[in-house]
Amino acid sequence: MVDIYQEKVRQANQLLAEFGLDMWMVLVRETAEHTDPVLKLLGHLNAVWTAAFIFTRTGERIAITGQGDDEAVRRQGLFDEVIPYTQSMQSVLLEVLDRFQPATIGVDYSKSDVSADGLTYGMWLTLQEYLKGTPYAGRLVSAENFVEALRGRKMPGELALMRKAIGVSAEIFDAVTAWLRPGLSEKEIHAFVTQQVKQRGIETAWDAEHCPGLNAGPNSPWGHFGASDEVTRPGETLNMDFGVKVDGFCSDNQRVWYFLRPGETRAPAEVQRIFDTVRGAIQAAADFVRPGLQGWEVDAVARKFITDAGYPEYPHALGHAVGRYAHDGGVGFYPRWERYGDKPYGRIAAGQVFTLELGIRSPFGYISLEEEILVTETGSEWLWPPQTELILVG
Amino acid sequence: MVDIYQEKVRQANQLLAEFGLDMWMVLVRETAEHTDPVLKLLGHLNAVWTAAFIFTRTGERIAITGQGDDEAVRRQGLFDEVIPYTQSMQSVLLEVLDRFQPATIGVDYSKSDVSADGLTYGMWLTLQEYLKGTPYAGRLVSAENFVEALRGRKMPGELALMRKAIGVSAEIFDAVTAWLRPGLSEKEIHAFVTQQVKQRGIETAWDAEHCPGLNAGPNSPWGHFGASDEVTRPGETLNMDFGVKVDGFCSDNQRVWYFLRPGETRAPAEVQRIFDTVRGAIQAAADFVRPGLQGWEVDAVARKFITDAGYPEYPHALGHAVGRYAHDGGVGFYPRWERYGDKPYGRIAAGQVFTLELGIRSPFGYISLEEEILVTETGSEWLWPPQTELILVG
Repeated sequence: MVDIYQEKVRQANQLLAEFGLDMWMVLVRETAEHTDPVLKLLGHLNAVWTAAFIFTRTGERIAITGQGDDEAVRRQGLFDEVIPYTQSMQSVLLEVLDRFQPATIGVDYSKSDVSADGLTYGMWLTLQEYLKGTPYAGRLVSAENFVEALRGRKMPGELALMRKAIGVSAEIFDAVTAWLRPGLSEKEIHAFVTQQVKQRGIETAWDAEHCPGLNAGPNSPWGHFGASDEVTRPGETLNMDFGVKVDGFCSDNQRVWYFLRPGETRAPAEVQRIFDTVRGAIQAAADFVRPGLQGWEVDAVARKFITDAGYPEYPHALGHAVGRYAHDGGVGFYPRWERYGDKPYGRIAAGQVFTLELGIRSPFGYISLEEEILVTETGSEWLWPPQTELILVG
Repeated sequence: MVDIYQEKVRQANQLLAEFGLDMWMVLVRETAEHTDPVLKLLGHLNAVWTAAFIFTRTGERIAITGQGDDEAVRRQGLFDEVIPYTQSMQSVLLEVLDRFQPATIGVDYSKSDVSADGLTYGMWLTLQEYLKGTPYAGRLVSAENFVEALRGRKMPGELALMRKAIGVSAEIFDAVTAWLRPGLSEKEIHAFVTQQVKQRGIETAWDAEHCPGLNAGPNSPWGHFGASDEVTRPGETLNMDFGVKVDGFCSDNQRVWYFLRPGETRAPAEVQRIFDTVRGAIQAAADFVRPGLQGWEVDAVARKFITDAGYPEYPHALGHAVGRYAHDGGVGFYPRWERYGDKPYGRIAAGQVFTLELGIRSPFGYISLEEEILVTETGSEWLWPPQTELILVG
């Protein structure tokens, strides 16, 4: 695991120039209770007392920690210097700033992106106090775009772990397909998947109560909550939204099954048409993706495909980044709605991993897919094989 | 578990008047990635999209969530109203504010206390935008003292769970005592305790790598990091700092053992004198604690006891709150050092649970204890039996 972190902290230093930052500072305390989500990218960086993890454009990495927290950080070998303090960190911090004289200091706040918004308001006020009367107080800027790039642009070691997670997830989807039959409740399916996860000694990608998310038939309520008592029935569909976390990296995918009625050998034409529309919208978006686009442009392609086919718009974004979290924050394929803030305007870059997900509610059930793509220098590639046919059960 | 949360949300409404707040608002988004630590007190409150959990002095509880997040919140039965939105939460939020016309709206920021500082700087800026041009923008205040009381003053259901956690912890300490012998490395002891935790299907109170914290003999480095290769030796001490999390509540305690040399039937006089000093300082503080004191006053009693006995001050606080986290934030027995901000000045109140912890480094090893007390209306009581004698091994 250390190699992943060594790759990542070097990437942090290297990305600073691209985003016009001389320094990046992550300021945290009592990380067991409340940490900056960016720290997970960089190592096992824990602090009881207020700590500053500092990266410079010139390639240095310096940690300032309370005495007692320092040795655990030092032993990870990620920082050139680990400086402990006892009564107050302020003077140590000012010494480090004076040494580097940064003209811009990025800190982690963002109106739009939770994963780039790790600095609390109280810590912001504390930092203002620390820097009062120094030139540095006026040099603090949002590190939002930098943090998004750091999180989003996967390094080779990270991509290998993402492929591993998606492989395990695919195994579990296949196990579900082999086991499914009519008459199973969402709760029974949830229990089966939970057992599959436990057997492998891994975790679900989001809270286990809501993972997998299941929709059996048309009466299952849509949204983020637990499995219901609705059952799989011939003539209806089942949708499953599921991901795993393996070695700290997540997958997030959906599959859809159709339960044949007696005598049927394929799904009714309307089910097939809806499935083909969903699949077609995802394929159209995947074909369109390339570095340099803004996220909303990709969403718009899939959204138009759906409405052109005569179906209603999906009430969410086409896709989000995947990585340390299932909803990994940063750039994504967001529509230009107020609730998404500035997120629709993020620029797509090579090395990012995104979901492509949308569905259509129908009298047969919720017919929805979620695939994952890796953005390449010239376009995108599937991170796992997309579902191209309805999976028929019975 | 629901009863605990019902108790707690009612307590939230009731505490508002005491702290001069008409309303309290917890503003979060993507809680799987970054949540406000206060939400854990109140229920299983998850949100993908920006959500506001609102409590009024008049006893109402209202949740505003993105569509899709609402049903999971509604099903917990903790809020009178759960209002979903699709494209933007702003208008819904303003309607709720107009309905209650709060003169003061507490939000979660604090310079001193991580557990009352759940609002990110980006969310603070977002809230400013939402409220721009309304009278409410000027009515936002820090809910710090309110949140500290809500977290710190345990309800009966919470106290029962804290006693349960400490009971399990005591079992594991006893198992260690029964198994200890000279020649064991800290790593072996760590592995033994880890196994004890796993057997019981519970978690450690803080990250498993650093829990238990161990100090075998005088050469073991002090601070928050993993077990070393130092071994238990006759004529030396072992200190263990350990806690468990059971049903969401933590314990946090230390014990100290002395390994007899051949022919010894008790510890050397100097070891005994240090142990008695540590124990005496903790007893003096416990005898002194009562509601209404400021935390630093309690720290000062133990600190003076140690220095009067001719030993150096401990380089940390005498004690912290325990609850959902081992270091639970809020009021505690902090010295008046800059690094602790305003925390030393918090007022002690009945229903709070604190550690009393301090140690002295010696040529025999680190001799340290950590006990837990419950503050009562008139003083305090031990939450578990304090260690009154060195535990002798061999």
